[in-house]
Amino acid sequence: MTQPEPTVRGLWYEDFVIGDERISPGRTVTEADVVNYASLTGDFSQMHTDEEFSKTTEFGTRIAHGMLGISLASALCLRTLYTRGTAVATLSWGEWRFRKPLYIGDTVHTRWRFTDKRESKSRPDAGIITEFIELINQNGEVVQDGEHILMMKKRPRDD
Amino acid sequence: MTQPEPTVRGLWYEDFVIGDERISPGRTVTEADVVNYASLTGDFSQMHTDEEFSKTTEFGTRIAHGMLGISLASALCLRTLYTRGTAVATLSWGEWRFRKPLYIGDTVHTRWRFTDKRESKSRPDAGIITEFIELINQNGEVVQDGEHILMMKKRPRDD
Amino acid sequence: MTQPEPTVRGLWYEDFVIGDERISPGRTVTEADVVNYASLTGDFSQMHTDEEFSKTTEFGTRIAHGMLGISLASALCLRTLYTRGTAVATLSWGEWRFRKPLYIGDTVHTRWRFTDKRESKSRPDAGIITEFIELINQNGEVVQDGEHILMMKKRPRDD
Amino acid sequence: MTQPEPTVRGLWYEDFVIGDERISPGRTVTEADVVNYASLTGDFSQMHTDEEFSKTTEFGTRIAHGMLGISLASALCLRTLYTRGTAVATLSWGEWRFRKPLYIGDTVHTRWRFTDKRESKSRPDAGIITEFIELINQNGEVVQDGEHILMMKKRPRDD
Amino acid sequence: MTQPEPTVRGLWYEDFVIGDERISPGRTVTEADVVNYASLTGDFSQMHTDEEFSKTTEFGTRIAHGMLGISLASALCLRTLYTRGTAVATLSWGEWRFRKPLYIGDTVHTRWRFTDKRESKSRPDAGIITEFIELINQNGEVVQDGEHILMMKKRPRDD
Amino acid sequence: MTQPEPTVRGLWYEDFVIGDERISPGRTVTEADVVNYASLTGDFSQMHTDEEFSKTTEFGTRIAHGMLGISLASALCLRTLYTRGTAVATLSWGEWRFRKPLYIGDTVHTRWRFTDKRESKSRPDAGIITEFIELINQNGEVVQDGEHILMMKKRPRDD
Repeated sequence: MTQPEPTVRGLWYEDFVIGDERISPGRTVTEADVVNYASLTGDFSQMHTDEEFSKTTEFGTRIAHGMLGISLASALCLRTLYTRGTAVATLSWGEWRFRKPLYIGDTVHTRWRFTDKRESKSRPDAGIITEFIELINQNGEVVQDGEHILMMKKRPRDD
Repeated sequence: MTQPEPTVRGLWYEDFVIGDERISPGRTVTEADVVNYASLTGDFSQMHTDEEFSKTTEFGTRIAHGMLGISLASALCLRTLYTRGTAVATLSWGEWRFRKPLYIGDTVHTRWRFTDKRESKSRPDAGIITEFIELINQNGEVVQDGEHILMMKKRPRDD
Repeated sequence: MTQPEPTVRGLWYEDFVIGDERISPGRTVTEADVVNYASLTGDFSQMHTDEEFSKTTEFGTRIAHGMLGISLASALCLRTLYTRGTAVATLSWGEWRFRKPLYIGDTVHTRWRFTDKRESKSRPDAGIITEFIELINQNGEVVQDGEHILMMKKRPRDD
Repeated sequence: MTQPEPTVRGLWYEDFVIGDERISPGRTVTEADVVNYASLTGDFSQMHTDEEFSKTTEFGTRIAHGMLGISLASALCLRTLYTRGTAVATLSWGEWRFRKPLYIGDTVHTRWRFTDKRESKSRPDAGIITEFIELINQNGEVVQDGEHILMMKKRPRDD
Repeated sequence: MTQPEPTVRGLWYEDFVIGDERISPGRTVTEADVVNYASLTGDFSQMHTDEEFSKTTEFGTRIAHGMLGISLASALCLRTLYTRGTAVATLSWGEWRFRKPLYIGDTVHTRWRFTDKRESKSRPDAGIITEFIELINQNGEVVQDGEHILMMKKRPRDD
Repeated sequence: MTQPEPTVRGLWYEDFVIGDERISPGRTVTEADVVNYASLTGDFSQMHTDEEFSKTTEFGTRIAHGMLGISLASALCLRTLYTRGTAVATLSWGEWRFRKPLYIGDTVHTRWRFTDKRESKSRPDAGIITEFIELINQNGEVVQDGEHILMMKKRPRDD
């Protein structure tokens, strides 16, 4: 028995237009999220899990893992669904900068634009997209940003 | 600072067409999901968490909570995004039937169709949609089904 | 080696008396519970996870998933243990209504009464119980209610 | 508004009889449980999380944290409900021995008996119970055992 | 392919000096941690999960599970790494006392000292260490304490 | 009351030697870890959560999120403790490449070497370290690699 095709599907390589910009929904970074990121990875560094220690740092309180920020940035972009069933793989991240601390209680969203597209040398049925992603907090500040490079399928002849 | 509007938005009340059918992506029900549902709710009934006991039941092994099924059904429908920013609330579930056991390792998706739409008496800016949802496993069997009633915003004049 | 029978066991079909009412312990709905329900199901709708967006809704803040309410209602009833080892299955939910929002920080309990019992046509060793469940918050307000139908084993001859 | 008293309540100090024995339901220790215990505590020791390393140990595979065993033992005893609303506090554990490894996939239950009871010097409305708990796997082997001392309320005059 | 030896390794039996004392980093006990401990074990006792009930207790609010305290104590000690790859097993806990309640928001650390060491009768390649552990909150109060006995490998000839 | 200094502390800027290489312990990527990463981020893409869909991909089964790989890489490096209390912040990742799929059941560790160190222009009390990290599976294959740049405190005069 074949599982049926979902009604909504992602974009094909041909659908990406250089210069197009997108905005994700927001997400509030809760204390539970920080605990869950520590839990998942085992990174219980004091700046993320020890409030007494954190009072003595320049931040004055526990902050979220920088890696939680990039993880949320990646997932928030996906929530616009542009890759469902049409993405081949993430190839790499270009330089990714941690610009400002991410605090518990901050609400972040992503803004990103497609900055490059090119043919894949290894796979004629796919192309390579570069996007520049900004993770932005509720004050409009860019807390992290950088480049993401992914391979997308081309539209099949019969689509 | 106002958070910007996400690029992708859900359907308005006017966009729903009675008789239209939709298919969600699939999701595999893992042992971790069953543990997580027990964890969240505190329902550690032996049929979900005690393999020795479960060997003696008619199922022969642990099964997933029925309520995990309806929870996934609800969320899988949402993953087509038809309500992002346009849903007001879920009003009720009509009768919901548990037809077959849901086993660890099963992969389920939803198929649903819009069966009714009507004006809301209390809110002139919204209407009420009825949909009939089937949760279907990898063998094409309907494991659960029933009615879901939700209130959707109407398209604003300036949209 | 057979696992021994637990000391405490649920009620048999014969033990249910129409009209009897029960009260569960309470449970506080934490921010972590809402994060965990989103995590389990993948329903990260903004009204549950985006505080900036939620400030603009009629609720003014993030609210819990309605489905978290019904999940807790079901599990809170089970915590009185009336089905340990004697329940066959949940057959269905009758209409279930979402009457009021469930806020982070609310403490809910269930009050339910047995409204019907009847023989099972398919299983002579079991009967069918209908119960009407109310999920009630710390202000005594019914936030959700509806019918739950389940199949219970009859007392064995030698019990 | 006062939250109503739950229908089912724990035992009072007077209800405990020295020599009485109880059996809990069982619970299967899943890989997810071991991951969750590591996550909660931050104990990612290789014998619990690194299968390649664990192949070289005397156990030949990852084993569960010993502390997960005692945690489950404690909670399994509680699932017979004997302390709901009537326990004051756990005072201490007597010596607790880790006798055998706990493997992923094992199903454990507890068998315990009340070995002592005495008045509390500090609280005339409560007494002190000692119980001896064994955590037993699906082969009937005692994997952990030891003493647990807790303070229970006495039955109020008007109960 | 053999997995390479990690750069940092734990202490050998010979490295333990009776009387030596150690201090762990701290960790803040969050509401999410208490939810997660209830989730893991199934211990949803009202004193840990029901704020309305807890207001009526002597603590006036929900408190953490005592067993979460001992679990964190054990893991915080491990975070100094003294057992990586050199521990054989935890043998037992001596008496472990719950001295004070552990509140949500408390930050705890451990202070422990090695109080005894002796040869193992069963394993000539290992020895037995006794340590006395105190779990201490942000006010310097000992909330829990007790003895922990573990078996450590001796340094191999060629190390 | 000041929280005391932990016994073990990370390396100071001066302790890093260009060319030095380190090896982390290993960690097995379980199905629960993949579920947990999806849960944390909301990325339930079918290639990570839908086994039926995944059978039709070039991988033939569900694979872990690439971002789970980089998250584990980062945390595995930290488990050697070189930054406890001495790290200021992660500044950026240089290019990070996803070279091979990460499968459920794989055991990964990191090997990394310090490739550059330089003074910080903005903070005279800290310096900047560049390290090149490889995430390696149980077959010795590099599944991901790239550059990580972090700021470390210099040793205080009185240390």
